[in-house]
Amino acid sequence: MEPGGCDAGPTVKAVAAVLPAGGSGERLGGATPKQFCTVQGRPLVSYTVRAVERVSWISDIIVVVSPENIETMKSIIEKYGHKRVTVTEGGITRHRSIFNGLKLFSENKFSNHLLQKPEVVVIHDAVRPFVEEDILLKVVMAAKEHGAAGAIRPLVSTVIASAADGCLDHSLERTKYRASEMPQAFLFDIIYQAYQQCTDYDLDYGTECLHLALKYCKTNAKLVEGTADLWKVTYKRDLYAAESIIKDSLSQQICIITDVKEAVVQVGFLLHESLRSQIKVETISISLSKRDNHLQNIFSGQCYNFVCINVHLNTSENASFSIDLEELTKMKKFAREVKRKNILVYGLLIQYKDYFPLQETVNSAAALTMALIKDRNPELTGQLVVA
Amino acid sequence: MEPGGCDAGPTVKAVAAVLPAGGSGERLGGATPKQFCTVQGRPLVSYTVRAVERVSWISDIIVVVSPENIETMKSIIEKYGHKRVTVTEGGITRHRSIFNGLKLFSENKFSNHLLQKPEVVVIHDAVRPFVEEDILLKVVMAAKEHGAAGAIRPLVSTVIASAADGCLDHSLERTKYRASEMPQAFLFDIIYQAYQQCTDYDLDYGTECLHLALKYCKTNAKLVEGTADLWKVTYKRDLYAAESIIKDSLSQQICIITDVKEAVVQVGFLLHESLRSQIKVETISISLSKRDNHLQNIFSGQCYNFVCINVHLNTSENASFSIDLEELTKMKKFAREVKRKNILVYGLLIQYKDYFPLQETVNSAAALTMALIKDRNPELTGQLVVA
Repeated sequence: MEPGGCDAGPTVKAVAAVLPAGGSGERLGGATPKQFCTVQGRPLVSYTVRAVERVSWISDIIVVVSPENIETMKSIIEKYGHKRVTVTEGGITRHRSIFNGLKLFSENKFSNHLLQKPEVVVIHDAVRPFVEEDILLKVVMAAKEHGAAGAIRPLVSTVIASAADGCLDHSLERTKYRASEMPQAFLFDIIYQAYQQCTDYDLDYGTECLHLALKYCKTNAKLVEGTADLWKVTYKRDLYAAESIIKDSLSQQICIITDVKEAVVQVGFLLHESLRSQIKVETISISLSKRDNHLQNIFSGQCYNFVCINVHLNTSENASFSIDLEELTKMKKFAREVKRKNILVYGLLIQYKDYFPLQETVNSAAALTMALIKDRNPELTGQLVVA
Repeated sequence: MEPGGCDAGPTVKAVAAVLPAGGSGERLGGATPKQFCTVQGRPLVSYTVRAVERVSWISDIIVVVSPENIETMKSIIEKYGHKRVTVTEGGITRHRSIFNGLKLFSENKFSNHLLQKPEVVVIHDAVRPFVEEDILLKVVMAAKEHGAAGAIRPLVSTVIASAADGCLDHSLERTKYRASEMPQAFLFDIIYQAYQQCTDYDLDYGTECLHLALKYCKTNAKLVEGTADLWKVTYKRDLYAAESIIKDSLSQQICIITDVKEAVVQVGFLLHESLRSQIKVETISISLSKRDNHLQNIFSGQCYNFVCINVHLNTSENASFSIDLEELTKMKKFAREVKRKNILVYGLLIQYKDYFPLQETVNSAAALTMALIKDRNPELTGQLVVA
């Protein structure tokens, strides 16, 4: 969807985004600023950049980081193949950082090549990784119409004012107020003019861009109801929550790959049936002897989770089976190698004996598969779990 | 520590706590109200009750739930052995529920036996499970002195007021306001009088107890800075965060149990050394042949995680080893049985061969042990992981 492209609404000529990522993360209580904390092997800021860059109508993305993190940020952009991103140096406060980002569009001295000045600029925090295109579109369209717009959320706690003695002065009626969240969007000329005119006090102690637009450009921002996932990663518990949400999003879908042989297809079918109440399942049967090309195509698709089923018949008569230590070591070595590419490999043994009901074992295999996919524990890769 | 018991400060005669737990959890987006959502096999409200009941100077704990959850709550209290807890029926709003809870201390008709009227009453949400004794003590002492007190936190987002047209009217200067959190504490007579006098509008639309004390009893509550862990479980992401925090708190300590035989003690020592940079480790060597009594004592201690080391010498010459399927099935069966008591059992095989460096294998075992302890994945119990 393109802003204005879908109906008779106003057409926006160019949209850029500025992501302030200069925070020190002091509330998190760790040494690493929260935007650079690793979640499932990837820095948080990279998730946010990805969320913004997949919006095709945002032409330029400026990430503003503190001087000591310029190189870190550049290497993140390279490692994760981010496009349309420019890294620039922030100031000592949030407002100064955002202002620096905006200058790339209008002051030659801050950039080797001047970026195209956008009609509307989106401002979004690097520590709000779950922003959706829908809310970005809404604030951009509202900014086009009103000059400024920002996402809001209901207050979770009552807000109170304290008197000088540390006692309650008054409490605000919760329904009359909202939490101002991100993203926000502005006509570029309005927010840039606001930053040019505002005082050092504003730049040093202010936090709210909507306030600057109101104070210096008499622009009353349109407020847009946002969804719960706009929240800002602030505390350690928020990193935990972000990790769980990311794990969740990675465990929505599974692809079962089997050989075309009947016995294998049957196990694949049963596993499919057992899994499909919990996860979206796709099953592909291909000749595994010429699998290389096929598999490459499958793996480059949208799915993050694969179960490849191979059937080995155990011909021994007794109830014990033997695992070759060298085989196990080989599997662990392979798992260790691909883990570097963030691919997690586990072995799953489905025991099938006449006196074991296959369905029950497959159900157990499905439960184990779900547990491994949901946990995504890199330490357990290369292990052989037994259903 | 007892309020007033430690120094010359005011002595509080009796302290009770009221936990409103009647919320419907609509913001969570699930069918189960959030206080009854299960985190690591235990309902959230049970963690909160535990946090309050371990404070020895709180004599009575009233949990106020909606009529349909009375039985659920009673069975939770029985299952987790909560003491000093009375369950009572809530009203249709938060204030009406809290008022109902307070009535147990002063109106005969609401209770079979009238509970002792406390001097100070603590009000705390059932969905804030991580409250510490320290902050409870602070609000109680402040309530004794000021009549009312409540925990506050800095605002995470700027708070704004919107005009009738859905545009920004003004934003509040973030530093002048605070989020009102829980716990709060009141002289019983003050908060009870406030509830008796307040209007139906207050009871139906209000949310803030401090406001009632101010409006009806002219009591300006003392505001006490709380810690980040006072936050309220509101959204699904908060449940994720709570789960991670609870897992974290369960993985702080490990007890390694070995036989007194030298070979076993040596492995135990190496594992101890390898783990101690990540977790508090205690190692106990006892004669495992008469272990039953000893182990019982150890397990009833404070530690949640145990590694029992047994050494089996593999005398075969070649690199393959054999796992008896029946043995494995027995272990899984045992793990399944004890899982009902929320005990998670995993098997860990440390391969020790002359040509494997033992230290390296032990390091790998330590990493696997930490992964299993941190993940606490019930689906993987009974599995044999190989270091």
